[in-house]
Amino acid sequence: MSRIGRNNGRASSGAATPFALVAAACIVAAAAVPAHAQPSGRDPAFSQPSVAPGVDYTVPTRAEIKATLDRIRDHFVKATPYRIIDVKTGAPIADFSKPVKDAGIDTRDGEYNDWTYSMGVVLAAMILATEVTGDPSFLAYTLKDFDFVFDHLDYFRAQAAAFGPQRLGYGRMFDMRELDHCGAIGAALVKAYGKKPDPRYRPMIDVVADFISNRMFRLPDGTLGRPRPQPVSLWVDDFYMSIPFLAQMGKLTGEDRYYDDAVKQVIQMSARLFDPATNLYDHSWFANATYDPKFFWGRGAGWALMAMAELLSVLPETHRDRPKVLDIFQRSVQGAAAVQGPTGLWHQLLDKTDSYLETSASAMFTFAIARGVNRGWLSPVHGPVAQTGWKAVAARVRLDGQIEGICVGTTAAYDAVYYYNRPTDLGAMQGYGPAIMAGAEVMTMIGQFDIERVNNTFHYKARKR
Amino acid sequence: MSRIGRNNGRASSGAATPFALVAAACIVAAAAVPAHAQPSGRDPAFSQPSVAPGVDYTVPTRAEIKATLDRIRDHFVKATPYRIIDVKTGAPIADFSKPVKDAGIDTRDGEYNDWTYSMGVVLAAMILATEVTGDPSFLAYTLKDFDFVFDHLDYFRAQAAAFGPQRLGYGRMFDMRELDHCGAIGAALVKAYGKKPDPRYRPMIDVVADFISNRMFRLPDGTLGRPRPQPVSLWVDDFYMSIPFLAQMGKLTGEDRYYDDAVKQVIQMSARLFDPATNLYDHSWFANATYDPKFFWGRGAGWALMAMAELLSVLPETHRDRPKVLDIFQRSVQGAAAVQGPTGLWHQLLDKTDSYLETSASAMFTFAIARGVNRGWLSPVHGPVAQTGWKAVAARVRLDGQIEGICVGTTAAYDAVYYYNRPTDLGAMQGYGPAIMAGAEVMTMIGQFDIERVNNTFHYKARKR
Amino acid sequence: MSRIGRNNGRASSGAATPFALVAAACIVAAAAVPAHAQPSGRDPAFSQPSVAPGVDYTVPTRAEIKATLDRIRDHFVKATPYRIIDVKTGAPIADFSKPVKDAGIDTRDGEYNDWTYSMGVVLAAMILATEVTGDPSFLAYTLKDFDFVFDHLDYFRAQAAAFGPQRLGYGRMFDMRELDHCGAIGAALVKAYGKKPDPRYRPMIDVVADFISNRMFRLPDGTLGRPRPQPVSLWVDDFYMSIPFLAQMGKLTGEDRYYDDAVKQVIQMSARLFDPATNLYDHSWFANATYDPKFFWGRGAGWALMAMAELLSVLPETHRDRPKVLDIFQRSVQGAAAVQGPTGLWHQLLDKTDSYLETSASAMFTFAIARGVNRGWLSPVHGPVAQTGWKAVAARVRLDGQIEGICVGTTAAYDAVYYYNRPTDLGAMQGYGPAIMAGAEVMTMIGQFDIERVNNTFHYKARKR
Repeated sequence: MSRIGRNNGRASSGAATPFALVAAACIVAAAAVPAHAQPSGRDPAFSQPSVAPGVDYTVPTRAEIKATLDRIRDHFVKATPYRIIDVKTGAPIADFSKPVKDAGIDTRDGEYNDWTYSMGVVLAAMILATEVTGDPSFLAYTLKDFDFVFDHLDYFRAQAAAFGPQRLGYGRMFDMRELDHCGAIGAALVKAYGKKPDPRYRPMIDVVADFISNRMFRLPDGTLGRPRPQPVSLWVDDFYMSIPFLAQMGKLTGEDRYYDDAVKQVIQMSARLFDPATNLYDHSWFANATYDPKFFWGRGAGWALMAMAELLSVLPETHRDRPKVLDIFQRSVQGAAAVQGPTGLWHQLLDKTDSYLETSASAMFTFAIARGVNRGWLSPVHGPVAQTGWKAVAARVRLDGQIEGICVGTTAAYDAVYYYNRPTDLGAMQGYGPAIMAGAEVMTMIGQFDIERVNNTFHYKARKR
Repeated sequence: MSRIGRNNGRASSGAATPFALVAAACIVAAAAVPAHAQPSGRDPAFSQPSVAPGVDYTVPTRAEIKATLDRIRDHFVKATPYRIIDVKTGAPIADFSKPVKDAGIDTRDGEYNDWTYSMGVVLAAMILATEVTGDPSFLAYTLKDFDFVFDHLDYFRAQAAAFGPQRLGYGRMFDMRELDHCGAIGAALVKAYGKKPDPRYRPMIDVVADFISNRMFRLPDGTLGRPRPQPVSLWVDDFYMSIPFLAQMGKLTGEDRYYDDAVKQVIQMSARLFDPATNLYDHSWFANATYDPKFFWGRGAGWALMAMAELLSVLPETHRDRPKVLDIFQRSVQGAAAVQGPTGLWHQLLDKTDSYLETSASAMFTFAIARGVNRGWLSPVHGPVAQTGWKAVAARVRLDGQIEGICVGTTAAYDAVYYYNRPTDLGAMQGYGPAIMAGAEVMTMIGQFDIERVNNTFHYKARKR
Repeated sequence: MSRIGRNNGRASSGAATPFALVAAACIVAAAAVPAHAQPSGRDPAFSQPSVAPGVDYTVPTRAEIKATLDRIRDHFVKATPYRIIDVKTGAPIADFSKPVKDAGIDTRDGEYNDWTYSMGVVLAAMILATEVTGDPSFLAYTLKDFDFVFDHLDYFRAQAAAFGPQRLGYGRMFDMRELDHCGAIGAALVKAYGKKPDPRYRPMIDVVADFISNRMFRLPDGTLGRPRPQPVSLWVDDFYMSIPFLAQMGKLTGEDRYYDDAVKQVIQMSARLFDPATNLYDHSWFANATYDPKFFWGRGAGWALMAMAELLSVLPETHRDRPKVLDIFQRSVQGAAAVQGPTGLWHQLLDKTDSYLETSASAMFTFAIARGVNRGWLSPVHGPVAQTGWKAVAARVRLDGQIEGICVGTTAAYDAVYYYNRPTDLGAMQGYGPAIMAGAEVMTMIGQFDIERVNNTFHYKARKR
């Protein structure tokens, strides 16, 4: 069904619902309506078309979602090279007995084997996909990728000892200097460690924990910041670059200090970045700007919502500040739902309908909202936001598993022109993990609720048992 | 004059106002300006065109409005079948001596003879049109329609007694279960009763009064709600589905309790549905969503403004809470005026300029604002909002009297995609009554004010006597 | 470089910054990156194009700005007629021995020799252009223009004595009745007096001072208002029609009362016209409208920001209320930066992305923000807003020095349709002065800061000395 709300639409929950009822706002019970009743004097030829004729306003099936996830996984399986090369010549390294300065992982086709925050999201998302679908192939990708990293870690350690950290030699693992170097992929590593307690994982997990807890730049009040682009800066991206890892460490170790730090980041970052007038997140905050410029960059807010969803997923119900996190999460969702675009995607600048529809933010909101609905942090009324979000994200997954419309890497900038004009790129990895997570969580959602199509929209009800 | 604000524009109030004066923000009295003075070095070829070249930015004439109203009325007169049929075969019912189960009114071409809330607005609007134009034909349509209903009521009562209420047998009159079943058309019936004290009308009026006052679902604080789509829901539509009737009952009976209840609905619905940040009305509120999703659906807000206008039209000047209602009305108008679109129409989602321009909301705002200006509830500065609103609505009335661009029936939904993509339909009756009311009230407005065209815009001044 | 943020973009600050780094949010120091590293699997053919492919996201050079300013100046030099004519016949006046009723300045090609507020901005802007560029030709234009006015003032005084003030005979100088008649051009005259202490200037300066301080319409609290279009009206335009002059008078005379009055206007006009929800300025305020309609007309807000910038430029650091003015200015800049459009221009209605991109407002914001950055009133993070603003304004300056996209004169109106549909005109002088001021101030800005291009955006740092 390619157009929505047409007169001949039928309820998905059994009884037919002819248009006349809809027009009268459901005046009588559907059962009383003769199926042939025709609506009043309308001539479809003069009906104004939907603004988004390609919108597919339906409930996705489990099979449909699985097929989309499979395409994305297949792309990763096929594209990941698992190769060490001479980065200057491209020739494979055959002899690993002693390090070569120019050795590096092969990233000529992408960052697949690299230790990056965006691959971290992909690797965590694959774990979730296996948990939800039962198909072990997703998790297998994650473990194979981490194995590749750890299989070559000693080699690159030796390279770094001999020549200093090299760009494509996992330097971020030895020379950790940014949350981008460790938080997201560290969280994925803790999750992988839960599936396969590889003895090589834990020491690296502890390195990350020490870096985030003790060594990373913070504001005087303990908020994780960055010394760039301004001397004291906050990036909303750092919600995800720190909080999921801290949350996973809380779960792994049972130590409250990790949960406390994660909660503190939510509260204190939000105090500076959450805009209560719009319920949207500003991309960045600079201590040296009295009235900080506000740019509601889609993916930035997406990181925040995903991070809160990750935290709420493991934070003990009894944690003193859980209600505060929940409140911020719920308000953020209110803001996000209000600015969803006509096709189900969100805009590059969330409040600017003339900015392009961006895939990664859309996937992130979809995941976070579906997770919230599934776990009871949100009213089921939010289900259709995630449902429409997923349908629109899925429409951007190509047959070859690559995903269109993902904004490339984006710094904390100062002008709307920058944000409006960030290009999109099939190789922008930031959207891939969120797309997988969104699909997996929406699959859980449609399995968990009875979804009634009444009056041409969808009503999520707790499943009758 | 198809473009506005052109340099050669002339004041409608007498003196020519060449552009140079305008550019200098009216530096000298127009009388001092030589008519041939040319503006400075401008080359029309390089002027950027108006964004909306079809905009007709002029004061409508009485005759022009009357012609539009005539076209709509003629459409109703022509399209209303006044026929009872076998709803399964379409064959006319000839024998009314005993009821037939499948007998029903003929709605194959529309809901014209039906007892619906949207026909209620049409029937009330026709009464207003006669009051304003002096042409009795509009009122005649209303009375003929009500006569048809009451002429067949006993037949359908017998049918319902024999077979239970049937969908096209005025079942909503015997089996009242929703405000949609009675409030708007009940208000029209009270108004008709004021024109023709038909003894059949009053008992039905009392049934409606009893239903709304005593039987309809309410929140613990007395706010009229609905048990759907969520167990405890508010719909902004219910402003109009209850308040005009309560207001008319206050006028009819002189009993304060009706006024008090109407006022209570305005205040208590607004507390949950009016968004003070934007001065717009959210379509719905669900008790089970902590932070309710906000969708500023045009027609929803239109119902609220029309209902307040109806209430203020009859609420005693001395009513204790009249200032509160007036305050809410004025703030709502501020919000509506701020989001009027480039052609004079409002958007389907009021705050989303990428949602389509919708006719019914536009007509509703136009009526409510013109009424407010006419009755002194609003400063005359709001006159041009109603004027431009009417011109744009009128442009959507086809030569055959059908109206384009009206959003079809719309439920309380959960996602922006739904609202963005509601289709429009020539048969969507919800916009017809408001269009008639808008035209009638704007006709009153242009007759009541001296409208000066100065500096290419319109200044409404109390008529000099 | 006509597209921004492309993968092959190079940092302007020395080291190459390949895309992969950007995508990973600057993971390692640029120096460590092999220049040939290729980003991951991206195929430019599938990249979504920028929404504004014509955007030139670069730092302008001093020469480039100078060339644009030269074109505008050349246009004025060429177009200004310096002619007195019979305004009915167009024939030149040869005999100035006794006044002729129909004599007037020749404005057939524009208001170049006229005494208008918009020429006032041009004349002040030319002075600034000479100060910044060192090229005396801009100031020369201003002085020649003022000389022409004062050379003919006695003639027109005699004409006015004989026949009453005539429209093209500098009547506004004898018969001052509006802030539009004196404030902006008065401020330019004070600035010109600082360059050339012509004895004819000072008496006229004092006439203006007396008019604004003692004779102009004010609200009871001293706020400068207008008795039109409503009996008690405020226009945000009057920020610029009064404050720069008052500020210059404070500087000229050293008398606090001028500064005090200027500060009072900022605070009291803002109390009525500044919208704290959006940090934008409403165009007008009417005492007779309880809830004033809000239209965030671009140029209106532009006048406010420019006026505050002019005041802060001369207001003593020690003035008691300087922090209040600074606070309002900073918040206004926050609001303006948030609504800059995709090309660097601002919209005709600032909050409406479907209204056209308008040049004069853009130039005004650009000037005010650049001035704020240059003088330390704003964090340097705002530099790119002014930079992108200027690039976009400059792209609208034609080869012949005329400027496209300037909204014509615009009154305080009552409906969005009016504002949306104001035409633009090459002869709309209101944008020319601001464009010159914007260019001059951005030239200062790029000379004052080290601008690093990192991660495809621009970082303004205090110049290393």
